[in-house]
Amino acid sequence: MLDKSNPFHVTSTRVRFAETDAMGIVHHASYLLYFEIGRVELIRQTGASYTDPEASGYSLAVGDIRIRYIASAHFDQQLTVRTQAANTRSRSVTFVYEIVDATTGQILVTGNSKLIYVDHNGTVSHIPERWIEAIRPFDTSE
Amino acid sequence: MLDKSNPFHVTSTRVRFAETDAMGIVHHASYLLYFEIGRVELIRQTGASYTDPEASGYSLAVGDIRIRYIASAHFDQQLTVRTQAANTRSRSVTFVYEIVDATTGQILVTGNSKLIYVDHNGTVSHIPERWIEAIRPFDTSE
Amino acid sequence: MLDKSNPFHVTSTRVRFAETDAMGIVHHASYLLYFEIGRVELIRQTGASYTDPEASGYSLAVGDIRIRYIASAHFDQQLTVRTQAANTRSRSVTFVYEIVDATTGQILVTGNSKLIYVDHNGTVSHIPERWIEAIRPFDTSE
Amino acid sequence: MLDKSNPFHVTSTRVRFAETDAMGIVHHASYLLYFEIGRVELIRQTGASYTDPEASGYSLAVGDIRIRYIASAHFDQQLTVRTQAANTRSRSVTFVYEIVDATTGQILVTGNSKLIYVDHNGTVSHIPERWIEAIRPFDTSE
Repeated sequence: MLDKSNPFHVTSTRVRFAETDAMGIVHHASYLLYFEIGRVELIRQTGASYTDPEASGYSLAVGDIRIRYIASAHFDQQLTVRTQAANTRSRSVTFVYEIVDATTGQILVTGNSKLIYVDHNGTVSHIPERWIEAIRPFDTSE
Repeated sequence: MLDKSNPFHVTSTRVRFAETDAMGIVHHASYLLYFEIGRVELIRQTGASYTDPEASGYSLAVGDIRIRYIASAHFDQQLTVRTQAANTRSRSVTFVYEIVDATTGQILVTGNSKLIYVDHNGTVSHIPERWIEAIRPFDTSE
Repeated sequence: MLDKSNPFHVTSTRVRFAETDAMGIVHHASYLLYFEIGRVELIRQTGASYTDPEASGYSLAVGDIRIRYIASAHFDQQLTVRTQAANTRSRSVTFVYEIVDATTGQILVTGNSKLIYVDHNGTVSHIPERWIEAIRPFDTSE
Repeated sequence: MLDKSNPFHVTSTRVRFAETDAMGIVHHASYLLYFEIGRVELIRQTGASYTDPEASGYSLAVGDIRIRYIASAHFDQQLTVRTQAANTRSRSVTFVYEIVDATTGQILVTGNSKLIYVDHNGTVSHIPERWIEAIRPFDTSE
C-alpha cells in the first residue's frame, strides 16, 4: 500500500485507444505500462536515469508483481500515477503504485513490483550507492 | 502454486518479436497475455466459450493478479502455458499459471489471477452453473 | 507528406520501455500508437472529441495506413508528433504524420492513415458537419 | 498484392483478447504483429532462422509498411496469415501479406512491408546468399 504520510512521486498519463479492449475498458495488462511510467519518472526525478544501468550494462529486472483492480479506466481518461519506493535493499527495490482518476481522485488500481539489479548476463548485482541515495527519499520504510 | 497432483490445462505459444523489449528478453507485461491465452484455452476445453459471457452481456473482469518472474524468455522461444483453477466460487474463479520452456521444462514465470463475473455495468454476478461445472475438474481446491 | 506551409497539430510523447524490442529500438508497430495519439489530440484541439462518435454510436475505423521508417527511436526518447489532415471527405478523412526527435527535429518516421466514419454495425456514414468544420483548418488540401 | 499463382507461406493465429480495442474489434496495430508472425514463419520454413541475423549481429529492420483494412477481425477468431516475398534484393526484401478468416477465407487485411538488412549500428548490409536462396521460392517476382 502506498503510504500517503510519506513522499511519493506523481506523474500523469492519458489512456490511449490501443490500451483498451473489447470490454470497452482499459485492458488489465496496460496498467503494467502505467506502473513502468511511474518508476521511470520517479527515478528521473532523483537525478539518476533509468537508462543509466542499461548504458552501463546493468538493468532493473522485474522480479515480482502484485496488481489489485478496483475500478475500470476508459479511453481518453486522464490518469494520475503515484509511485513510492517501499523497500530499498542493496540488490533490489520495491515500488508501490496507485493509479487514480486525475479529476476525481478515485483509486482505480494499486500494485507493487520488486525490481532486481542485474548485469547483462542476468547476474544479480549491487545497486550503485548513488541510486540508493536518490531513491531513499521516496522510500517509506526508511 | 500450480498443483501438479491435480489436472491442469496445457497449451503453447511462441514468443513474438513484438513481445520483447530493449533488454533483449520478453517484456514483463507480455506474460499477462500468455496467462490470458491459458485461461481462454482452459475454458474452451471445458466446452464453454470465453466469449459466451460477452455475447450474453457478461464478462470475466480481472480482480487481482500476482506474477513471479524466475527466468527470462526470449524471442522465438516455444513456451508451454499450464493453467489450473484454484478456487471456484459463485461469483469468481482464480486461475493459477506456470509458463515453462517447452523444451527443457524450466519454469520461467508463475502467477495467478482472480477473475470476477460481471455484467456490462460492472455489477458482480453469479457465474452460470454450467461454467462452474465445466471449470471444476481443473480446480485443485475441490 | 506533411505540408509545413500549412497548419499542423503538434503534441509530444516519450518512448516507453514496453514500446521497445530486442533490437534495442522502438518496435515498428509502436509508431501506430504515436499516430493515434496525434489524431486524437488534433481532434481534441478542434473542440470535437474523439470519443464523441463512440458515445453516439459512431467510430472512426482505420481504412488504410502507410508508414515510412527513416531512423530508429529509442527508450526514453522525447518525440514530437506532428499531425495534419490531408483530404477531408464526407465519409472519410486522411491524417498525415511526422514523428520527429523533440530535441534535434530529426524526422524518424512519416506516415498517413485514412479513417472512415462508421456506425456500430460497420456501415460507412457521413461525418457530422461540425467535425468536418473542426478538422478543416488542419487540412492542407483545402 | 499477394500473387496466388505463386507459392506462399501459410500459418495461423487466433485473436487474443489483448489485441482487441473498445470498438469491440481487433485494434488496427495488431495486424502488424500478425504480419511479423507471417514473415518469421516463412523464414523458419526456409530453414534459415529469423534469429540468425540477431545472433550474428545483423537484423531485419522495417523500412516501409502499407496496410489495407477490408473487414474487422474479432476476439477468438481463427486467422490465416499468408505471406509471400515480392522483391528480394541484395540488401532488402519485401514481404506481402493477407490476413483471412480461417473458416470462410474472407480477406480481412492485406499489406506489405519492406525489410532492410542492417548491422547493430544500423548500417545497411548485404543479405547472406543462403537467406536469399531460401526466400526466393516464395518470391513471386522471380
